[in-house]
Amino acid sequence: MLHAVIPAGGSGTRLWPLSRSSNPKFLHPLTGTAQTMLQATMARLAPLSGLSETFVVTGVSHAVAVARQLPDLPESNILVEPSPRDSCAAIGLAAAVIEHRSPGAVMGSFSADHLVRDPAAFVTVVREAVAGAERGLLMTVGITPTHPETGYGYLHTGDLVAGGIREVTEFKEKPNAEVARAYVESGNYLWNAGMFVWKTDVFLAELAEQQPSLHEGLRAIAAVWDTDDRDAAIGDLWPTLTKISVDYAVMEGASAKGIVGTVPGDFGWHDIGDFHTVGTVLPATDEGNVILGGSKDEVLLVDVHDSVIVPGSGRLVAAVGLRDVIIVDTPDAVLVCPRDRAQDVKKLVDELKDRGETAYL
Amino acid sequence: MLHAVIPAGGSGTRLWPLSRSSNPKFLHPLTGTAQTMLQATMARLAPLSGLSETFVVTGVSHAVAVARQLPDLPESNILVEPSPRDSCAAIGLAAAVIEHRSPGAVMGSFSADHLVRDPAAFVTVVREAVAGAERGLLMTVGITPTHPETGYGYLHTGDLVAGGIREVTEFKEKPNAEVARAYVESGNYLWNAGMFVWKTDVFLAELAEQQPSLHEGLRAIAAVWDTDDRDAAIGDLWPTLTKISVDYAVMEGASAKGIVGTVPGDFGWHDIGDFHTVGTVLPATDEGNVILGGSKDEVLLVDVHDSVIVPGSGRLVAAVGLRDVIIVDTPDAVLVCPRDRAQDVKKLVDELKDRGETAYL
Repeated sequence: MLHAVIPAGGSGTRLWPLSRSSNPKFLHPLTGTAQTMLQATMARLAPLSGLSETFVVTGVSHAVAVARQLPDLPESNILVEPSPRDSCAAIGLAAAVIEHRSPGAVMGSFSADHLVRDPAAFVTVVREAVAGAERGLLMTVGITPTHPETGYGYLHTGDLVAGGIREVTEFKEKPNAEVARAYVESGNYLWNAGMFVWKTDVFLAELAEQQPSLHEGLRAIAAVWDTDDRDAAIGDLWPTLTKISVDYAVMEGASAKGIVGTVPGDFGWHDIGDFHTVGTVLPATDEGNVILGGSKDEVLLVDVHDSVIVPGSGRLVAAVGLRDVIIVDTPDAVLVCPRDRAQDVKKLVDELKDRGETAYL
Repeated sequence: MLHAVIPAGGSGTRLWPLSRSSNPKFLHPLTGTAQTMLQATMARLAPLSGLSETFVVTGVSHAVAVARQLPDLPESNILVEPSPRDSCAAIGLAAAVIEHRSPGAVMGSFSADHLVRDPAAFVTVVREAVAGAERGLLMTVGITPTHPETGYGYLHTGDLVAGGIREVTEFKEKPNAEVARAYVESGNYLWNAGMFVWKTDVFLAELAEQQPSLHEGLRAIAAVWDTDDRDAAIGDLWPTLTKISVDYAVMEGASAKGIVGTVPGDFGWHDIGDFHTVGTVLPATDEGNVILGGSKDEVLLVDVHDSVIVPGSGRLVAAVGLRDVIIVDTPDAVLVCPRDRAQDVKKLVDELKDRGETAYL
């Protein structure tokens, strides 16, 4: 049985004002159903992991919301970080706790804020990745690119190892447009979706080599996680842990050693990073509008096309004569923005930070 | 001394959701100052009329708001119509009440929802119109056209009568674009702004000829207006009054007789009919944005130009990357619309009526 780990963090600033630091995107139903992204992630993993083998790693400010959105998840499987120390600390904590409880387990890590349109295909691909992990590889699930996206990192793939598993020879940063086109045309690159599958002992051994102090801290915390000494250990050690991503800390070095593998996935994966993407991914009306959440009574559109409308305050969102526009209504703020400027929503958040308007963040 | 009458009616559907049937545009500060349109209208008339000679004619649903916005206006000068019966009944009621109280008075009628950028010039023009009224003419104040507007009616002017006063030979309906261009190029047409100045006895005599039953009803109501019999007379007679505009009922026929005059006015007159006009008329920021009401803290604009932003719910109105867009925020509805579709806001109101969503109207 796979131990499934769901890192649930990140604020999703380009999804402001829906997504806030206190109420980030994984807590919202950006899935086209009533499920939040977190709930959809857990449902997607159910065929692979039982409840007692499913973990969420989250921050103190989201622990209550996570607990309430996932009422069946055992309390001991919600790992609450006292402060964010990047992905290696988060995923490494889960790896160390799982290894302490179930030595030699296979774990997979899957972000709480990704969308998967074909959950059955996802399960098949993860099972192949588990087979690779059981061979001792640090596995990633790479996404077969559908276009030369510049917003993601890429995996450079090498030879076939076995079955559908290929070696990953290199992790590539987000490319420019020209490089992205070359990657996609070559057929040798996959999107790095940040999904990992490995045996916890293999991962921790590699972490010990590449980041010995981080490994030591995480091991010490995990050793007392299920005891009364947890708080003391966290208080002493957590603030000392290196802030680093798992890609930099472990995966890049491991790929150079030839111990990273990947299974190409083609299951309708989307990183819902902004409202334009929401409009691209979710089902639309005949006019091409995506209306997210809220009741039909909350929206009044006349001659509005290809727009993304997010009612959310109980008020009426009325529009006439628009195309390719985003409108997001929340109880304390309303956003209007063309779809081709969806990335620039971050600028509003930056401006609010500059102004010290923390109530809106 | 002029008796000034301010008809305060009309819902301003193209200014929805700010303007509602329960809270129409003349009650809102669409003036670029803290004054509402009604308050600005009264202030503009102060050099011409004392408080005891200033009247407002309004409907039952706005009487309280009018009373509170104009706390110094004598109670007996707020004439409350039990139901709307078009402009001839409203203006005629005021004429009949004034004639009953002050026989042979000169009265002027000036809408509560017009904007005047040069109040001093307005006063000068109205004084010329008063001179015409004293000669026994039914005077209008025509507006020198600045462009071939198709949204207004026009006055066809004839010979000079005296001073700056010209005869009006014909009232013209709203023209199409071609006709409007011809009107403006000829130099013989003025915009009909619905501003009238006349002796009440002259007006009522003309009304008696053209609309005898309407005249009789209004006279009977006016005769008991200041007595305990007012309610009974209103209850009996008001519902029987002909619903007709003052242009159709009196002015068109009177112009054919050669007893209508006009003074061309050039005092920055605007009929604030829609939010695009609001953006054209009121002072803008360096980026060309007109921000109406609300505090600066209620608006956050990044790369937004030539737009009309109306915060009004206490919430933050945030926008990025927009040009020529209207955003209107109210406690129960938010509107988004391009400026060149400002007229189509009426379609939203029509749709709400069709749906029976009266709470928003």
